[in-house]
Amino acid sequence: MTSFAARHIGPSADEQARMLKTVGYETVEDLMTAAIPGSIRWHRPLDLPPAASEADVLAELRALASANRPLVSMIGLGYYGTHTPPVILRNVLEDPSWYTAYTPYQPEISQGRLEALLNFQTVVADLTGLPVAGASLLDEATAAAEAMTLARRSSKVKSDVYVVDADVLPQTLAVVRTRAEPLGIEVRVVDLATDELPDAYFGVHLQYPGESGVVRDHEALIGRAHAAGAIVTVAADLLALCVLREPGAIGADVAVGSAQRFGVPMGFGGPHAGYISVRQGLERTLPGRLVGVSKDAGGAPAYRLALQTREQHIRREKATSNICTAQVLLAVTASMYAVYHGPDGLREIAARTHEMAGRLAAGLRAGGIAVEHDAFFDTVAALVPGQAGQIVESAAARGINLRRIDADRVGIACDETTTFGHVRDVLAAFGLAHVDVTELDPADHVPAELRRASSYLTHPVFSSHRSETAMLRYLRKLSDKDYALDRGMIPLGSCTMKLNATAEMEPITWPEFANIHPFAPATQTQGYRRLISDLERWLAEVTGYDAVSLQPNAGSQGELAGLLAIRAYHLDRGDASRDMCLIPSSAHGTNAASAVMAGMRVAVVACDELGNVDLADLDEKIDRHRDRLAAIMVTYPSTHGVYESGISELCNKVHEAGGQVYVDGANLNALLGYAKPGQFGADVSHLNLHKTFCIPHGGGGPGVGPVAVRAHLARFLPSHPFLSADAPVGPVAAAPYGSAGILPIPWAYLRLMGPDGLTKATATAVLAANYVAARLREHYPVLYSGAEHPVAHECILDLRGITRASGVTVADVAKRLIDYGFHAPTMSFPVAGTLMVEPTESEDLGELDRFCDAMIAIKAEIDRVAAGEWPAGDNPLANAPHTAAVVTADEWPYAYPRSVAAYPSAAAREAKYWPPVRRIDDSYGDRNLVCSCPPASAYEE
Amino acid sequence: MTSFAARHIGPSADEQARMLKTVGYETVEDLMTAAIPGSIRWHRPLDLPPAASEADVLAELRALASANRPLVSMIGLGYYGTHTPPVILRNVLEDPSWYTAYTPYQPEISQGRLEALLNFQTVVADLTGLPVAGASLLDEATAAAEAMTLARRSSKVKSDVYVVDADVLPQTLAVVRTRAEPLGIEVRVVDLATDELPDAYFGVHLQYPGESGVVRDHEALIGRAHAAGAIVTVAADLLALCVLREPGAIGADVAVGSAQRFGVPMGFGGPHAGYISVRQGLERTLPGRLVGVSKDAGGAPAYRLALQTREQHIRREKATSNICTAQVLLAVTASMYAVYHGPDGLREIAARTHEMAGRLAAGLRAGGIAVEHDAFFDTVAALVPGQAGQIVESAAARGINLRRIDADRVGIACDETTTFGHVRDVLAAFGLAHVDVTELDPADHVPAELRRASSYLTHPVFSSHRSETAMLRYLRKLSDKDYALDRGMIPLGSCTMKLNATAEMEPITWPEFANIHPFAPATQTQGYRRLISDLERWLAEVTGYDAVSLQPNAGSQGELAGLLAIRAYHLDRGDASRDMCLIPSSAHGTNAASAVMAGMRVAVVACDELGNVDLADLDEKIDRHRDRLAAIMVTYPSTHGVYESGISELCNKVHEAGGQVYVDGANLNALLGYAKPGQFGADVSHLNLHKTFCIPHGGGGPGVGPVAVRAHLARFLPSHPFLSADAPVGPVAAAPYGSAGILPIPWAYLRLMGPDGLTKATATAVLAANYVAARLREHYPVLYSGAEHPVAHECILDLRGITRASGVTVADVAKRLIDYGFHAPTMSFPVAGTLMVEPTESEDLGELDRFCDAMIAIKAEIDRVAAGEWPAGDNPLANAPHTAAVVTADEWPYAYPRSVAAYPSAAAREAKYWPPVRRIDDSYGDRNLVCSCPPASAYEE
Repeated sequence: MTSFAARHIGPSADEQARMLKTVGYETVEDLMTAAIPGSIRWHRPLDLPPAASEADVLAELRALASANRPLVSMIGLGYYGTHTPPVILRNVLEDPSWYTAYTPYQPEISQGRLEALLNFQTVVADLTGLPVAGASLLDEATAAAEAMTLARRSSKVKSDVYVVDADVLPQTLAVVRTRAEPLGIEVRVVDLATDELPDAYFGVHLQYPGESGVVRDHEALIGRAHAAGAIVTVAADLLALCVLREPGAIGADVAVGSAQRFGVPMGFGGPHAGYISVRQGLERTLPGRLVGVSKDAGGAPAYRLALQTREQHIRREKATSNICTAQVLLAVTASMYAVYHGPDGLREIAARTHEMAGRLAAGLRAGGIAVEHDAFFDTVAALVPGQAGQIVESAAARGINLRRIDADRVGIACDETTTFGHVRDVLAAFGLAHVDVTELDPADHVPAELRRASSYLTHPVFSSHRSETAMLRYLRKLSDKDYALDRGMIPLGSCTMKLNATAEMEPITWPEFANIHPFAPATQTQGYRRLISDLERWLAEVTGYDAVSLQPNAGSQGELAGLLAIRAYHLDRGDASRDMCLIPSSAHGTNAASAVMAGMRVAVVACDELGNVDLADLDEKIDRHRDRLAAIMVTYPSTHGVYESGISELCNKVHEAGGQVYVDGANLNALLGYAKPGQFGADVSHLNLHKTFCIPHGGGGPGVGPVAVRAHLARFLPSHPFLSADAPVGPVAAAPYGSAGILPIPWAYLRLMGPDGLTKATATAVLAANYVAARLREHYPVLYSGAEHPVAHECILDLRGITRASGVTVADVAKRLIDYGFHAPTMSFPVAGTLMVEPTESEDLGELDRFCDAMIAIKAEIDRVAAGEWPAGDNPLANAPHTAAVVTADEWPYAYPRSVAAYPSAAAREAKYWPPVRRIDDSYGDRNLVCSCPPASAYEE
Repeated sequence: MTSFAARHIGPSADEQARMLKTVGYETVEDLMTAAIPGSIRWHRPLDLPPAASEADVLAELRALASANRPLVSMIGLGYYGTHTPPVILRNVLEDPSWYTAYTPYQPEISQGRLEALLNFQTVVADLTGLPVAGASLLDEATAAAEAMTLARRSSKVKSDVYVVDADVLPQTLAVVRTRAEPLGIEVRVVDLATDELPDAYFGVHLQYPGESGVVRDHEALIGRAHAAGAIVTVAADLLALCVLREPGAIGADVAVGSAQRFGVPMGFGGPHAGYISVRQGLERTLPGRLVGVSKDAGGAPAYRLALQTREQHIRREKATSNICTAQVLLAVTASMYAVYHGPDGLREIAARTHEMAGRLAAGLRAGGIAVEHDAFFDTVAALVPGQAGQIVESAAARGINLRRIDADRVGIACDETTTFGHVRDVLAAFGLAHVDVTELDPADHVPAELRRASSYLTHPVFSSHRSETAMLRYLRKLSDKDYALDRGMIPLGSCTMKLNATAEMEPITWPEFANIHPFAPATQTQGYRRLISDLERWLAEVTGYDAVSLQPNAGSQGELAGLLAIRAYHLDRGDASRDMCLIPSSAHGTNAASAVMAGMRVAVVACDELGNVDLADLDEKIDRHRDRLAAIMVTYPSTHGVYESGISELCNKVHEAGGQVYVDGANLNALLGYAKPGQFGADVSHLNLHKTFCIPHGGGGPGVGPVAVRAHLARFLPSHPFLSADAPVGPVAAAPYGSAGILPIPWAYLRLMGPDGLTKATATAVLAANYVAARLREHYPVLYSGAEHPVAHECILDLRGITRASGVTVADVAKRLIDYGFHAPTMSFPVAGTLMVEPTESEDLGELDRFCDAMIAIKAEIDRVAAGEWPAGDNPLANAPHTAAVVTADEWPYAYPRSVAAYPSAAAREAKYWPPVRRIDDSYGDRNLVCSCPPASAYEE
């Protein structure tokens, strides 16, 4: 049977031999020896279990799954049972056309998911009553932290005090505290039900409904906060908002929360879409992605990411957030849940959930058990002095998890999956088996003044896909507009768009992994715990570190966690002045933004003309900041796609000056099996499981960004209130293990590939990049490389001279590639005016050649423009991409024939991808910001 | 929560109200009262469990699944463990773009699955060494029966004797016997290893390898049979043929078998793709579907069904087989397994399977246990006098099913899933736990003269999709070419293309349903048995019959089983002369073909001008054939889409003459909840679970065609040698419960809909057909209907006058509908020159209106042709469908603009489906028959 590695790795042995010939090496080992500095080369096999077959790995995962015990969850605390409609489960979460898509940086080929995200934004904006919602954040807790810093930026109050109501979710409070500390923000927890607001504070965080389940009218309180100049964030439950007055209506400036219960399985904590929405005037302060409506070259409405100038990859250390990704796949799922149910369906689900809670409260009271609050939506707290533990156990024996609030109180959260049978079983756990649930009065426990009056989801998209047939076709229509890995290669430098194998993906939607609450008892989550412990061990082994935390639910959060560990280490040693972080000029913008969030200042180290860190400048910067030096953050291989030979020296220099070395793991796909950052001098790295370890990009999330450290930093890894008290560093994500629900993917990848497979994958990725460089070098200059200097796993094509000579830009080439049937490489990163190509190990020679052929053919087209054969403003590059509508139009006013527009290559003719819109005008959209569903009339021709 | 019925049924209550207004009825009940004769109307609620939610039904199915115990199967007998590559499982079997497709009667919009089927034919042709293979048959046993009748047609020998070698699979022999008896064929079982062929016989059936596992050289035997003028069929195992000499090379005329072990789960017996291939000269006698290569209007190669004139829907009682469907979805799966593994991979799998069997034999012999044969491929028979039962039990206790051949022999079949661990456990069950499996000599047990010398799968398609990435893209590329229910409605009259809901589909790929051998012990299959018994009971209830058999694995087999029951009933009563079957002229051609296969003669009853059975002619025919009258076969509502009011009278007349009434259940979707054939006069019906009960059409199969009978016929239902001996009627399919693996689908549908939902679905289907009729009546005459005569669930649009006036044909309209984004209705059935539209209950009003709008717009286009505005040979109808290549070509030589060709409607502009080829020339392909992959050069421009 063919090994999995041979399925994962694109080029066959024959093809690799041909590629080596082109590249000029005898063997892959020769190439790797030339590429990787001998000083860092790891020569022993990785200490991992040997590769297993897909069938065996799936069997092992089934065994792990069956070691989980998914009980009915009534724990609540931000995580609820939900029914993912099967049509959405199968055709979004389990469909490669959705999950293998990339972040929609090329909006012309991403209209499907952009529409889905716009629907998500509309859901959030409508339900929260705030006009501008982002395309999702990582989870509710990080969204709350982002809201805190947004408030600090936006409030004019000169205070470092941030008030958090005592009725906040515990994990939200913990993450807010983690994020506040390095920024010098004082988090003051106040029981606002009884106590007054302090004298000065820049913002207030309220939970709605509260952690206790209570529903309070915050309007007056918000008025007082506004009068004091503060910004008010309301963390609100989306389902509750279907029947409760919306945050916008009670005065909130910002709303945050989670869209989990809109059809996204709990997954032991994630991934889910967190949300954020803001009032008019705050939209330009929004962290994360924002989808907006603009128009294309023909004037038709078209979606794209809006206001990208806010983001860290442009503003670097001036950025206000390090968030790069959204939780697109989950936001899409949640949006489709809303599309499928529509406003009536959602209202009915909310009403039924509320009714169940009402019956529960009535049943408890009928049985003589007091319930803490009269006003609630879905959660009731029963007062059972001294008996909470025993009642929770009794419920668990009936298959239901309740929440032990403390020795005297039990929390019970209802959701759309709650049935009469569950209510009956819960009452039985309270010793009230005799109560007749059907006879109980399901009174309305929402106070009259908090009942929602306004309508929502009035856009037709939320009422025209009610049947499963209609829903299925809507999903297909949208995914057909998009280009994902299931159509062709996505050679995005720095993004590692490799295969997301089906065997890796299958387990994540198994009920035993999907339907587990993050705070479920350890006895019920043994499978997850074994899987997590394996994965931590294996990731430590492949990176050479001593400890790994899987909690960070995005690379950005991994960076932050790594820098917080460094900060805590220095502080723990009494080195309080070490707050300077050196960052090379070539770094990802996120690095700088993360450093600032970790309370550091940033000094930039120059790069030499070969793209390497300028060691002389490094010496100079170290000298200048020696006593304050906290860390250096470098990416290895560099963002220029080069294995810098000075890396060991760099590490030594920084260590000698008392600093720590942070190696950004973004390019780990060029290292596995060949070098270990934890062994060649680094102290900490974050990894991107959605790059090297096959978690699919999902159209822009979920990502997972574990942080790995050497032993001296291990105790400064992120903790969690549900795991340990009094840890030196708090959590960076809401759930103890972050996005645990997708960890079966990297587990399966490591298990399937084994040590040899991983090593081969690395070498093949490097070979593929060098092959592309070798084939394209005579057409496009390749930066930082030559016959003696192999590139690493990506190569940079320099178009600056071409642009000067012809006027054709990187954007023109990127859009023209669409006509050829390809996703563009990374544009203008890390060097403006270039394209960075990362083919990964998963593309076979046929696809690599098709891509190179397309690039070469495009160069010939550029030459015709340069030669004046085609006018500068009227050529297939300037007008790319070409839609079917343009090429089939009755009029053809262009200087080149239709066939050149539509079918520039034989490959394009064989399987043509038609972009649904023409080139999109970005600045128009930013000037005329529309971030929720536009009326249908906008689409009229 | 919205009920499942509201998701399954397309039009909302509001939309239904608007539709009723158009149709001219106040309520749905008024419409149904007007449509259905009062005499047959059923007034009580169906006695079924009330509807349950998707979550509850999936939970119930999980409970049923967990009542199955899928052991490692080493039973063999034609069913083997296999690894379905996950990429194929998810992207074919679990992908609606494949499973919701229809039979490729409209080849221009079916090129993807036609290519996949051509690959299947190539696999079979190459491996069997016979040049022409069909697109699959129902299973190996029915394929063997078809081969028998093919032999009888093709042999010039005047004999009724068909020789079957004693080493045949028992289920194959049983089906062959069932099929032989009514045709007057004498099946003579001869042990050809020892005994001689008889004097006269028209054909021979050989098993290769034999049921005992032995591999024999049949070449000399085949030579003797040929010398005697007989046709020789070799039933061969496809995996074995990867290392054994191919049937074509040893002289076989026909090869049959199963492609199950090419990646298709056992599924407790099915569905799987049976195969048949024949030598040159026999291709026009092939039963079932055959895909061939032809060319399109632009001369490009294009696939379509070849030689359709052979088939029963054209030849009727002259047909040689009643097979309508193939097992397309499973044939596609098997073909993709071959594409993915390629010739080298298959050879390796075969070699490893053989090696495991060799180790087993060596281990048994090392332990002193004799093995029956020296020459074998994957199956060994161990000789253990008196101990077989105990060893089989001991193996089962180790999680492995072996085969108890008899008290003294145990059969052990290896397959691609067999591991050293399994071999070890099997040896342990024989008391040989001490044998070291790794030390055993895996000698080659294929005799030198039977080792395969020829190559296979040399076409590039079998070596260019080796990586999972490449495979995924190939699957997507093919499915993108096709039009299925996930794109839009398929209003095929008589085919009931309704929703195949995801919740219904999910369970079929769960391991507990998928990985069960059909002959696994009853103790391991309790879940299946409960599911089957529920389904039999529920289907009996909804049809009003007393007993149901789920064995027939296609509608055609259900018909045959029903007619065999009638035949056996008459014979049992001593009514040996009753062999005349009356069939109305409007009937499906299959009816007549089935009657002939059941040993009956056919007399045609005329229809009146309203499409009803002409009762006067019926009287006449009954009078003429009174003593020989066996049965009448009618479809109800009729194939004209009319509820004939004379149905009760018809039943009475036939019963009075001593005949039985067979009601074809093809149109049951117009009856459920409103009338029960078993209660209004019929004695037997077959149902099409792939129509009314939501089994997807899968691109032309799988179908399931249970037969339902009243009590007096119950004991004449199909039996099975593994269920009961000495039943009056043998099996019609290889497995006891036919295609049991997909029975969770109808089970789920009935459970999800409940009695009310099913009844509503019926009424909505009738409403939808009447709505289409009402909207189109002024543009196209609607046959057999009027304001006072509602149609049933489909309506016939009469184009004959339009064609006379304009020259525009039904084919032109059908192909033009593709440009508008629709699948054509049924063409020229049951009335030539018409289109029959069956919208089903699952299409919402938006889609119904889009279809009606398209039909009306097309009528306006026809009017322009009729008016001479567009030339007869150069108009958008004559040139339809228009490919993207045509409409984007540099030259545009047509009399109408490109925009009319490409985007005739706003709906088409919004989500355009581009057919990959232009109109296909059918007769060219039949004149130049190519039925396996053509060389790539054929596709060069």
